Parts: sequence; structure tokens; C-alpha cells
Amino acid sequence: MTNIDYYFDYAAATPLDERVFEAMRPFLFDDFFNPSSPYEPAVAVRRKYLAAKHQLAQTFGASGDELVMTAGATESINLAVGSFPGHKVAPTSEHKSVLEATKRNDHTLVQVDKHGHVTPQDIVSAVREDTELVSVALANHEIGSIQPIRSIAQELEIVRATRREQGNARPLLFHCDASQGFGLLDINVGRLGVDLLTLNSAKIYGPKQMGLLWIKPGVVLQPQIVGGGQERGLRSGTENVAGVVGFSAAAARATQKRSHEFDRMIVLRGRLEQRLKEALPGAIFSGHPKHRLANFCHVSFPNIDAERLVFLLEMKQVYVATSSACAANSGTRSTVLTAIGMEDTVADGSIRLTLGRHTTEASVEYAADQLIAAVKGEIKRTGVAT
Amino acid sequence: MTNIDYYFDYAAATPLDERVFEAMRPFLFDDFFNPSSPYEPAVAVRRKYLAAKHQLAQTFGASGDELVMTAGATESINLAVGSFPGHKVAPTSEHKSVLEATKRNDHTLVQVDKHGHVTPQDIVSAVREDTELVSVALANHEIGSIQPIRSIAQELEIVRATRREQGNARPLLFHCDASQGFGLLDINVGRLGVDLLTLNSAKIYGPKQMGLLWIKPGVVLQPQIVGGGQERGLRSGTENVAGVVGFSAAAARATQKRSHEFDRMIVLRGRLEQRLKEALPGAIFSGHPKHRLANFCHVSFPNIDAERLVFLLEMKQVYVATSSACAANSGTRSTVLTAIGMEDTVADGSIRLTLGRHTTEASVEYAADQLIAAVKGEIKRTGVAT
Repeated sequence: MTNIDYYFDYAAATPLDERVFEAMRPFLFDDFFNPSSPYEPAVAVRRKYLAAKHQLAQTFGASGDELVMTAGATESINLAVGSFPGHKVAPTSEHKSVLEATKRNDHTLVQVDKHGHVTPQDIVSAVREDTELVSVALANHEIGSIQPIRSIAQELEIVRATRREQGNARPLLFHCDASQGFGLLDINVGRLGVDLLTLNSAKIYGPKQMGLLWIKPGVVLQPQIVGGGQERGLRSGTENVAGVVGFSAAAARATQKRSHEFDRMIVLRGRLEQRLKEALPGAIFSGHPKHRLANFCHVSFPNIDAERLVFLLEMKQVYVATSSACAANSGTRSTVLTAIGMEDTVADGSIRLTLGRHTTEASVEYAADQLIAAVKGEIKRTGVAT
Repeated sequence: MTNIDYYFDYAAATPLDERVFEAMRPFLFDDFFNPSSPYEPAVAVRRKYLAAKHQLAQTFGASGDELVMTAGATESINLAVGSFPGHKVAPTSEHKSVLEATKRNDHTLVQVDKHGHVTPQDIVSAVREDTELVSVALANHEIGSIQPIRSIAQELEIVRATRREQGNARPLLFHCDASQGFGLLDINVGRLGVDLLTLNSAKIYGPKQMGLLWIKPGVVLQPQIVGGGQERGLRSGTENVAGVVGFSAAAARATQKRSHEFDRMIVLRGRLEQRLKEALPGAIFSGHPKHRLANFCHVSFPNIDAERLVFLLEMKQVYVATSSACAANSGTRSTVLTAIGMEDTVADGSIRLTLGRHTTEASVEYAADQLIAAVKGEIKRTGVAT
């Protein structure tokens, strides 16, 4: 039995909220009907499906009919980015799903600073006459830095105005991958000023394999998956009713808990970093000092092997990430740490601790104890200076 | 509360098997970890994920590493068909997901006979020098006719041999959508002789939003969804561990129950059709007289409005389909019924009853009573001859 108290990898996965599951349960068993079937119980399921979509959309200032439900953020990102064959712009610090989707066509990657921050000016400088899409994550998945989405949107609006004057009718769309941060940031598509927004249920204690793409009214996308014509023809396949109901319930819970959780995370993460700084003066903390997700702690111990730390910590039931989970298996160095200019000897000693609903003061103290002991042990064992 | 006893739309959706859910449950809550995370409990989840894939593959004579797990049959079909930009061949009776994916490029649709059957000869005649993929469903989703997959595979092997002699190096692959029939037919990829096989969990009392594409070793596909590189790089996105475990458990249950369920369906469907034939001599039954899924009953009442029948039956808690559920909302006539040459006045009076695990003798008798009464009532009300 795993002790969730010492789980520090909420950015990689969250357990399903029991109450969210209770909302989903009827649609697994009694109300299992295909929402496209013609008889009354199936029509009722369709109504509940549409209502869940609408409630979900409202949590970020949108309307249910503006959503395409997908099997996760990666699919949403591929749908958004893949709809535009023209030139694209994205920061070098983006998640692999954005980078890989962007690299399928002509593109420019924009350098970020040492905090993983991209400036609106640098984005705009990379926009060419034939650029069709800019994609920037709301918050970085490894170091938690929050990008200036609204400012970028405003700059892009100026570019669009210029294009209109010049008679350039090419679309210039702004996609934001907001997979990280939905539970702690107050996300509103109107305020952000984006055209396309990706959200992920699996990061907010909702069901896994469930994401969405919000599409600003008027924006035209190309379907990747064709067939029965579900989701406005943009994503065919029988609707995931239980999944959408769960995503909606998870978003409602996240919205309700957001302010409380934000305050809690600030205190807990602050305590964690304070303990590490005091005990391990050589530790390097990454992420923007001000604009950073409240539950992210990214820390590097130069010349220490992060994989050894993961191993030492897991024996104490403390679970931390080395780099973005989905790249972890590939044996390659984190692209984010390269993007922020971190040296290899520092990057290889980097771990990410992300806090969540089950994290308590006691968990933080325990994890700090264990991490400090592990790093000190490694320093002693290897004789390196850190 | 819906009475599942009178549900006759198992081809559209099946309720989740409670025992399947119990197999999934740990991966929703305690073992929720991202299978790409580096610490031991996550590595254990990955092991269980791979084991579930392998057990699933073995139920149809394949190996776990030959599967790409998807969010359903439609995604699997799009991955298979979308991987080949060259000319494609498919019967006119295919599911919309195959038709729409096929129509994206140059293609030939092959006419089927009045039973929805396609001949290997007609398929081969449509294959050109530049044909790269042939896609034929194992069993039709509306009338249940089973296609001669093995014979088609053998004919295609002859075409490949000729191509090799002629120095034509173009691939010629055979994809089979076996979404319908997995629970009642003994499916084995080796015996079928196909290169690509689509299966769907939602039709076998497994979790919804879960499908797979089996890929014969050596066949090279192009990913649709890129990113973290999961599923051999062919389908990025965090793995749906609970979904795959559920699919695997559902396949095991289906395999175990297959022979018993097949025998039951033959008797129950036989009784249903017998009652309808006796009471309503004008009824027209569709689907191949011999090669037809044991749980499918497709029946047409000329000049009767099938939507009225659905409405009359739902008041008696009997639930039947008018045409394929995912096309039901579109207000268009079934492409399958057009493909088999059915006249509009007959097609518009067509319903599909598909039987399943909860169907009993009593359900069949009751449904037959209600359907006979509804049709007789409509004949009387409208004065039409049927």
C-alpha cells in the first residue's frame, strides 16, 4: 500500500476524487446508453452530457458548445496545432506534445530566459507573414513558470490589425496549453485572450484519458479523427459520457477549492523550499521567482545523480519526479532544462516536487527530512561538492 | 430506472461489467500513478499495464507489444487508414468511421450484395497498382453480416505476390474493423490473415472510450497524435491504465462466455424472428442468412415509420435502434441500407434489435409482444399495407 502523504508528483498524475467518481458512476452502469441512440433513456443521457459540458465550460468562462472533448491534453494539442499547416511559433520550453506537433511543419521555436519565461516581444518577433498559430503553455510542466499569456494575446492582436491593413487574410491563432495550473489559477478564456485552450482532467483529480479543446467561436479547425461526426464533426467517436461528467465534476471541485488550495500550497511549498535552502545551501531552485505555480518546487543538486535520489526517496515512500514523466522513460535529458540554459551537471541532479490535495505540513517536513538526508548521504558517498 | 431486460441495442453500447470494473478500480484510486514516472509504485503500474495489454492481445492470438491502445474504434480506424496516403478500397457497407477516413484520399468503394456481403473477387478487382490499403469490417454494424475476411486476405496475398514479381514495392495492407462481433466470434489475427485489426472495448461490457489497433509485426504506421512517444510513438498521451486493464478483463470475460453466449443468442434471436415472422408476414429481415452475427436482428416494416416504432416501444421500456447509433442524430438515411439496395420506404421502416448478456427468453417474448402490437397498431392507424 502506497502512502499518498509522501507523493510529490501531482503534476504527473492525480488520484481520482471519490466524489468525482460518484458523479460518474451512473454513466458506467445504469445510464450506459450511447448518447446518439434514439430512445428516451439515451436522449436523457445526451442531455446530461451536454449539461456537463456546459457546466465544465462555465468554470473557465466558456460555453459548452465551444468545447471539443478529447482523450487528453495531447490529443487536444494535436487537434489545435495540426489544424494549421502554415508556419508556427512556440517557446523552446513547451511540453513535448506541443513541440512534436509544431515540428511537423515549418516553425520557429522562441528562446526562453533562465526562468523559462518568454517575452511577448520575442514571440511577436518570431511571427512571420505566413505564421498561422502561436502556442504557449500557461504554466511550464517542469518548473512551473507562468507565461504572460494575456500580454502575448494583446501583442498578437496588434499583429492581426497590421495584417488586416496589409490585406493579409491568413489566420493567426493563439493556442494555450493550460494542462498545468487549472486547479490553482483562475482561468478565463476571455481574460486570457486566447483562441484555443487545452485543458486536462487527469491533473485535477478527474478521470484520466479526458481532455478538452476550447475553440473560440468563429475559429475553424480541421478534424483529425473522422467518422460519425460527433463533437461538431471535429472529433468522431462515441462520446465519453462518464468521462465528461467526471471532468465537469472535477473542474467544479477544483474551482471551489482553488483559493484555499492556493493558500495552502504557498505555505507548504514555502516551508519545503525553506528547509532545503537552510540545509543544502548548494541547492538551485528553478522557475520564475514570482510567476510560478504555487505547488511546484524544482530543485537541482549539482553533481548529484537525480535517479539515485529518486531511488533513495522511494525507499522512504517519498515519490518525486526527475523530469517530465512522459519523457522520463526515454533516457534523454529534459528539454526544458536545456531551454533555460541549465548545465548538464546541474540538470542531471534535478528533481521536481509537486504538491497537491493530500500534501500536509507533516508530509512536507518528512519529505524535507528524507531529501536532505539523501542528498547529504550522496555528497558523503561520492565526495562531490554541491 | 431503466429496465435493462428490454434493452435491445447492445451493438450501440453495453453496460460496464461489474467484475471488469473491480479490476479497474485500483488504477483509478490507489494505483493512479503515471506509468512513465520513475519511482517504484509507478514502475509497478507500468508492469501491470504491459501485462494487461499482453493478456488482452492473447485473447485474439496476438502479442501485447503489437497493440496500440486508443480512445476507441474510431481512433484506431483513423490511425490505420490515415497512415496510408495512397489509393484505398472498402465496401460501401462500412461504418462511417471507415468511409470518412477512406474518403480523405483517392479510394474505390466496392458494392455489396443484398445481404451486405462483399466478394473477395470484387475487392481484388478494385485493387489498383497504387492501392495501399483495403479495409473490410468483420461484421456489419447494422445488419450483422459477416464478411469473408480470410478469403479476402488470401486473394490479397496473391496480389502481393504478383506485385513482388512486377517489382511494385508499394505496401498493400489489409485492415479489419472487428468492433462488432468480438464477444461472439472467435477472432484470431493469424487465422484471419489481416495486417491491422481494430477492436473496441465498449461493445464487450468493458470501459468506453477504449479501443485498440493491432499491427502485424513489420507494418509501419504514421502517428496521428504526437508528443511524449507513448505506444511505440504511434499514439502519444499518458496511458489509460485503468481503461486497458478493464478492456483486458472484458476480453477475458467475453472469451470465457463466448460459446455459451453464442448458443444463447442463436436460440433467443431465433425465437424473436420466429415470433415476428409469424405475426407480421410482411416483415423483411436483413443480413446474410448464414453468415450473420448471432445477436443481430434487423427487420423492416415497409411504409411504417421506424421512429414511431422507437417511440411506441420506449413507452413500454423496449429500446431498439433505427440505424447505426452514431448516425442516428444526423437525420440522414442509413448508408448500409442504401448499400444493400433497400428501397427508401422499406429503409425508413427499419429497426435493429441487438441482443446481449441481459437478454432472456422473457425479454424476447415481451419485446416481440410489444413490437408486434406496435406494428399492428401503426398498420391500423395509417392504413398502410406492410
